[in-house]
Amino acid sequence: MAAKNLASCLFCKIIKGDIPSFKLVETELSFSFLDIGPLSKGHALVIPKYHAQKLHELPDEYLADVMPIAKKIALAQGAENYNVLQNNGRLAHQEVDHVHFHIIPKPSKDEGLIVGWPAKTMSKEELQALHEEMKGKL
Amino acid sequence: MAAKNLASCLFCKIIKGDIPSFKLVETELSFSFLDIGPLSKGHALVIPKYHAQKLHELPDEYLADVMPIAKKIALAQGAENYNVLQNNGRLAHQEVDHVHFHIIPKPSKDEGLIVGWPAKTMSKEELQALHEEMKGKL
Ligand SMILES: [Zn+2]
Ligand SMILES: [Zn+2]
Repeated sequence: MAAKNLASCLFCKIIKGDIPSFKLVETELSFSFLDIGPLSKGHALVIPKYHAQKLHELPDEYLADVMPIAKKIALAQGAENYNVLQNNGRLAHQEVDHVHFHIIPKPSKDEGLIVGWPAKTMSKEELQALHEEMKGKL
Repeated sequence: MAAKNLASCLFCKIIKGDIPSFKLVETELSFSFLDIGPLSKGHALVIPKYHAQKLHELPDEYLADVMPIAKKIALAQGAENYNVLQNNGRLAHQEVDHVHFHIIPKPSKDEGLIVGWPAKTMSKEELQALHEEMKGKL
């Protein structure tokens, strides 16, 4: 389907089976497989069967299908600590331009995702103004 | 509902309105609001209206409801680059023990989520063995 697949996309090729993968769960709308350059043992990806670069470009039915699969994979990984991460855009660490959700076990401080958290201080007034602005766009 | 809310939980109190928040989208199953200690302007949280600490403990209908809301918020944020993150367990940077999804604009290298990526090397044989093991648990 031309609207759903992009011939040059690595993940579209994996979905079609043109490139082999270590497949985990597959549904009508989603595909999942082991990451071959994992951050930790069990690191897996869930991807929609629809070519879009960023999350906000996906139809809702594809979005709704992802997290129940992430849950199945987290249960199979059996990790006590883990992160679910989805990156949009090069600056946000996206490396393949087809939406993908990482499920990454966190077995120790140095393995798995390393999270840096540069929290800002915003005043109540700034938050209120931002809140009004965003509500106007929802 | 006793099964769904925990009296001592900060996010359960926000859902019930006992603690005020800068509410964004609300549905029957989910609630979303601005993070008051944001990593960047617009940083928001989506939480299920069901008390569970970790993603794999949530019923599927709550899981399915989250990402379409994340999409709405990402569109309202209007950021070109952004991360969606959900942390499970203290070691994985979870700070409030009620499942929450961060939607975090990434306006610059130093603002927003800082991602560290300590990729491992796994041989094809190791991946194959892991794949068999995980398929047995799915
Ligand atoms: Zn694709
Ligand atoms: Zn709670």
